[in-house]
Amino acid sequence: MKLQSLRLIINSVRKFINMGAYTRLWNMTKKLHAVDIASLMDHLIFREKIILFKVLNEKEKRKAAEVISELEPQDAAEILKELPVEQIASCFHLTPSDDVPPVLQYLPEELRDSVLAKMGEKPSEEIKGLLHYEEETAGRIMSQDFYALNQNTNVSDAITAMQLEGEVESAFYLYVVDDENHLVGVVSIRQLLFARPNSKLKDIMNTDLITVNTKTDQEEVARKVADYNLVAIPVLDKENNLLGVVTVDDVIDVLDQEATEDIYKMVSLDTSDRIQDTPFKSIKKRLPFLLFSLLTASLSPFVVNYFKATIEQAVTLAVFMPLVAALGGISGNQTIALMVREIATGQTDWLSSRKALAKEIIVGLGNGIFIGFVIAFISYFLIGNIYIGIILGGAIIINLFVAASLGTLIPLLLRLLHLDPALGSVNLLTMCTDTIGILSFLGLGTLFLNYIS
Amino acid sequence: MKLQSLRLIINSVRKFINMGAYTRLWNMTKKLHAVDIASLMDHLIFREKIILFKVLNEKEKRKAAEVISELEPQDAAEILKELPVEQIASCFHLTPSDDVPPVLQYLPEELRDSVLAKMGEKPSEEIKGLLHYEEETAGRIMSQDFYALNQNTNVSDAITAMQLEGEVESAFYLYVVDDENHLVGVVSIRQLLFARPNSKLKDIMNTDLITVNTKTDQEEVARKVADYNLVAIPVLDKENNLLGVVTVDDVIDVLDQEATEDIYKMVSLDTSDRIQDTPFKSIKKRLPFLLFSLLTASLSPFVVNYFKATIEQAVTLAVFMPLVAALGGISGNQTIALMVREIATGQTDWLSSRKALAKEIIVGLGNGIFIGFVIAFISYFLIGNIYIGIILGGAIIINLFVAASLGTLIPLLLRLLHLDPALGSVNLLTMCTDTIGILSFLGLGTLFLNYIS
Repeated sequence: MKLQSLRLIINSVRKFINMGAYTRLWNMTKKLHAVDIASLMDHLIFREKIILFKVLNEKEKRKAAEVISELEPQDAAEILKELPVEQIASCFHLTPSDDVPPVLQYLPEELRDSVLAKMGEKPSEEIKGLLHYEEETAGRIMSQDFYALNQNTNVSDAITAMQLEGEVESAFYLYVVDDENHLVGVVSIRQLLFARPNSKLKDIMNTDLITVNTKTDQEEVARKVADYNLVAIPVLDKENNLLGVVTVDDVIDVLDQEATEDIYKMVSLDTSDRIQDTPFKSIKKRLPFLLFSLLTASLSPFVVNYFKATIEQAVTLAVFMPLVAALGGISGNQTIALMVREIATGQTDWLSSRKALAKEIIVGLGNGIFIGFVIAFISYFLIGNIYIGIILGGAIIINLFVAASLGTLIPLLLRLLHLDPALGSVNLLTMCTDTIGILSFLGLGTLFLNYIS
Repeated sequence: MKLQSLRLIINSVRKFINMGAYTRLWNMTKKLHAVDIASLMDHLIFREKIILFKVLNEKEKRKAAEVISELEPQDAAEILKELPVEQIASCFHLTPSDDVPPVLQYLPEELRDSVLAKMGEKPSEEIKGLLHYEEETAGRIMSQDFYALNQNTNVSDAITAMQLEGEVESAFYLYVVDDENHLVGVVSIRQLLFARPNSKLKDIMNTDLITVNTKTDQEEVARKVADYNLVAIPVLDKENNLLGVVTVDDVIDVLDQEATEDIYKMVSLDTSDRIQDTPFKSIKKRLPFLLFSLLTASLSPFVVNYFKATIEQAVTLAVFMPLVAALGGISGNQTIALMVREIATGQTDWLSSRKALAKEIIVGLGNGIFIGFVIAFISYFLIGNIYIGIILGGAIIINLFVAASLGTLIPLLLRLLHLDPALGSVNLLTMCTDTIGILSFLGLGTLFLNYIS
């Protein structure tokens, strides 16, 4: 939806709510896609959200449930809390099963239990089942709504069975199982359409299966779906029983989330930090990181302090100190960005890592030598002292070498420690390039002190 | 494919190629998915790639074409160049139409023309048509393979027509057009399966269409598919004629590419820079940016130079200078990361931008005051001079305020100038926080000079 039309709709929605013109409110919103209603709600105040949702829920329960699916789980829970238990339960009945647990988590425990009790045994067991899987695994994000039939079913019976089962959200495949409920093949719905009615599923099914299990990390699930161009991937347990499917729309959410996390972790930002948070919430999230950075950033003052006597005799060194530090940081950040995306999107094993390290070191040295000479030349031109140029150029060569090496090694080491390769990498690198840059610059300065003071 | 098994397969493939055991090579690779063959090729030398591809192309043309789709366009072109023109043309016939133009671009012009001539008029016109659209638009990434039928067709005729048209890669929808070929609705293939054979398409179609046009930026296309949970989106011309579809697998590639670009552009890295490039290529790509950074990073030495007399009298100031600069950069980078992802994934208009700016400024000031006091306290403790603490704390409060403001404003201003909001943002910010941080620190130092020297 274009921003201009969104603005118009928000204004009308507000007006209708304030006037109590709920029929007009419904007439306006019923034409909107659930996604648009959800993004519209982000711009309303709480009271308005509740009224709009209650109107939707009264007029068209399915649409209300769709809106719940599209909202952020916290927001959805806050709205549902305002409804009677029966209405929450009936709304969850209409929501795809994989979207229910995230919302449930944000409901107060007592309310959650009564909602589950109201939902009946089977759905409530299913949902509780999903909650058992660890966060960020295939089990947690899979949907339990899918078509699965025995391999000996024929095509026309399969079509009837699927029709009886009713609408399954975004189902493009029929999964085929054997008598023990093990997944043995998959048939696209298009194939069913073209197949002879009396062919058996096992004769038309595709047995070249790409699957994950319930414990597979959601990022790996997403990469598989992306690499093999799938629209859904089946989730199996240890015995090859089909438990659910992860659909491509959830995969896109995971990829978006991981891309955000890569950037956030690089700069040591809490992955839950959002522009829309209250300032107080953000301060609370960022202060610990800043205090930690204060610690890491305090290394360089110690180095400078050590060389105080040198600086006292040649203050010109203090002038160029920030330049050496800055260039190291800038060029190291480039290597970090490359490595973080390489690890996130590709397959990086130790062989390719060694190659990457060797390559980045050559690049760092090459750039360092070039930039070092340029700086040496310029500073000689400006100051007239060749030694300042040599010291500055030398320190920059050293620092760009360090930046390239650490820019490659920090993400690799973080991964080796089973941490996210991006985690705080920019800060760690800056600490090192600041410290080593200043150390080599002032160290060289001390060596050549007689020529520059 | 797991890395261990990939390693094993690479070794066998190499062995078979060196032995000239092409039947065993084919027996080994025919079981692999085209995606895996493509990623296997990344690890082979050029001569091996060519042999493997020629074997595939001889044994199973469709699989060879699938591998071409999965390879990076440059790599695919380099392999195809080694084949006779007729074989390239017949390979392109089997490749989805949206995957052909990117590969064609990398073929030498003469070869490209003879391949197109060999392909026959219709396909070659179609492909030339795609090449007319600008890069990174829906027109360029759309596929021209889709099912579209007139709204008055009944379901059983539609099924027959689709069957006659044959297999269409990843088609999950049948598009419905009126007599003027305008898109009027869409029917999922699942709906066809369940519909009565004599119902007309116009009676069962969904008219709530979400579409893009040929000129829509690929990032906007991807966002729409992601937001509305689609698996394909129709691409229309100005007259609402259906020209193609963009499928979700291409959308995932676009989202991956955009996420990489966000990170790369933040640190001023060329978006085509890759770990696998030769060092020389990377040096050539990164040097211009580093030279530019040298220019921006040279601002702070001028500031320090201006305050040389102050530093001569109070060298302690030089000690803490890097700390003030570093903390500004660290906290500003956080705001930049937030804003870049916010703009990339969400709808940021001027109203929400103003809110974001106000919020980040409060956060910057809040964190600044807290960190400032901590530093003031610690430095007083270490050095015993309360004024050093005041100067340091004050400069940090100023610099974190500046970092928060500019961290929000730089991405917004870049977008206002129709540039990528991430473009060089980290370097621009570091330049500002380094300069303003040092300026305020040494400025305060000069004011209180009598108390600290």
